[in-house]
Amino acid sequence: MTILLYDLVGHDEKRPFSPHCWKAAMALAHKGLDISTAPTRFLEVPAIEGGVSKTVPVIRDGDKIVVVSFAIALYLDEAYPDRPTLFGGEGGTATARFIERWSQLTIHPYVTTAAIVDLHGMQDEENAAYFRRSREQRFGKRLEDVVAARDAGLTAFRAALEPLRSMLSYQPFIGGASPLFADYIVFGALQWARVASPYRLLESNDVVAHWFDRCLDLHGGLGRKVEAAA
Amino acid sequence: MTILLYDLVGHDEKRPFSPHCWKAAMALAHKGLDISTAPTRFLEVPAIEGGVSKTVPVIRDGDKIVVVSFAIALYLDEAYPDRPTLFGGEGGTATARFIERWSQLTIHPYVTTAAIVDLHGMQDEENAAYFRRSREQRFGKRLEDVVAARDAGLTAFRAALEPLRSMLSYQPFIGGASPLFADYIVFGALQWARVASPYRLLESNDVVAHWFDRCLDLHGGLGRKVEAAA
Repeated sequence: MTILLYDLVGHDEKRPFSPHCWKAAMALAHKGLDISTAPTRFLEVPAIEGGVSKTVPVIRDGDKIVVVSFAIALYLDEAYPDRPTLFGGEGGTATARFIERWSQLTIHPYVTTAAIVDLHGMQDEENAAYFRRSREQRFGKRLEDVVAARDAGLTAFRAALEPLRSMLSYQPFIGGASPLFADYIVFGALQWARVASPYRLLESNDVVAHWFDRCLDLHGGLGRKVEAAA
Repeated sequence: MTILLYDLVGHDEKRPFSPHCWKAAMALAHKGLDISTAPTRFLEVPAIEGGVSKTVPVIRDGDKIVVVSFAIALYLDEAYPDRPTLFGGEGGTATARFIERWSQLTIHPYVTTAAIVDLHGMQDEENAAYFRRSREQRFGKRLEDVVAARDAGLTAFRAALEPLRSMLSYQPFIGGASPLFADYIVFGALQWARVASPYRLLESNDVVAHWFDRCLDLHGGLGRKVEAAA
């Protein structure tokens, strides 16, 4: 049976960009599950499946609807225990939550800063207006004033990745010898930046960039099927 | 059989302070293993077991000697698989490495800054001289000039704990419903500060402080048996 993934897009349906949807897409691919995607714009999210969620990803698996990427990963491991694990046991499930909070609080704010004008530019007219209105309200400033901070913040952002960088001297993936959902959590954040913005977050000789490249290669190069923003 | 833990102390043998030794002590207690401790001063470390390590913890379990806290935890889970797991499976083992790097790079530098003069004060005369010499060489400044930065850094330190703080809104321990070695990794860093210095790292209403209190209660209150520095 095919699982339906509601995936956030802008005016180009072929360029899904949401970090959280990428986490779900990678999790589904990791499990080897067949999926179809329903390209969804910001303003269409509240109508998904009769209004089950204010955010994406949302998946429908038969009669089962699951929202929020972490919950989707948990659901997939529970519903499909015979397929490759996303967490590698109870310990991995628990500690993935720490990594999720780290990524959300360390990587997401800077990617938002760096890519916010590009993200606006990816939307169709109606969604661009919504994006500008909602984000400018959240930040209390114009998108153009948010992005103005990105150059000044770049060095600190790269330094903040040091735990990931240091870990990569021990093992090739956060999940160890092979990737787990913990990798997809962090991958999603950097893939969001890659798809939305040409701004260079990582130096090419950074081991974090090498790990990200390995993630782009996974599952038949799923992440690479969407070209980097130019 | 009793496992011997070489545990770092200063002039008072009853006040082990090393973060890494605390990780090992908590791991041994988690496994319910009988231990004896060999109180060891900085200058005695190179002579342990004929010179197997430049650092503590070191454990001897029969003929087996294991060095470095993370390796000790791995060894204990492998050698004593029927006792409570320290990692909760392969995923937990891998992701604990990320948490170890995060703790080492986020918490340790600030605790060093905050407690370095107090750590010096805990040593006997010979070890205090060694500590001052080696640390002042590492920092390129006097211990008293290192600690001078702690007030200015406190707000940033507390903010840097936000991933942990945020995670605690999902679950009571890094390990989930109950603690794993990942908890002891971070606990060790804060226990090092607690034993060495009266300087208040956390506000008492911080959920991180509440989690730390829960860790102090574990294993018969093992961490609490050493009183906080006053």
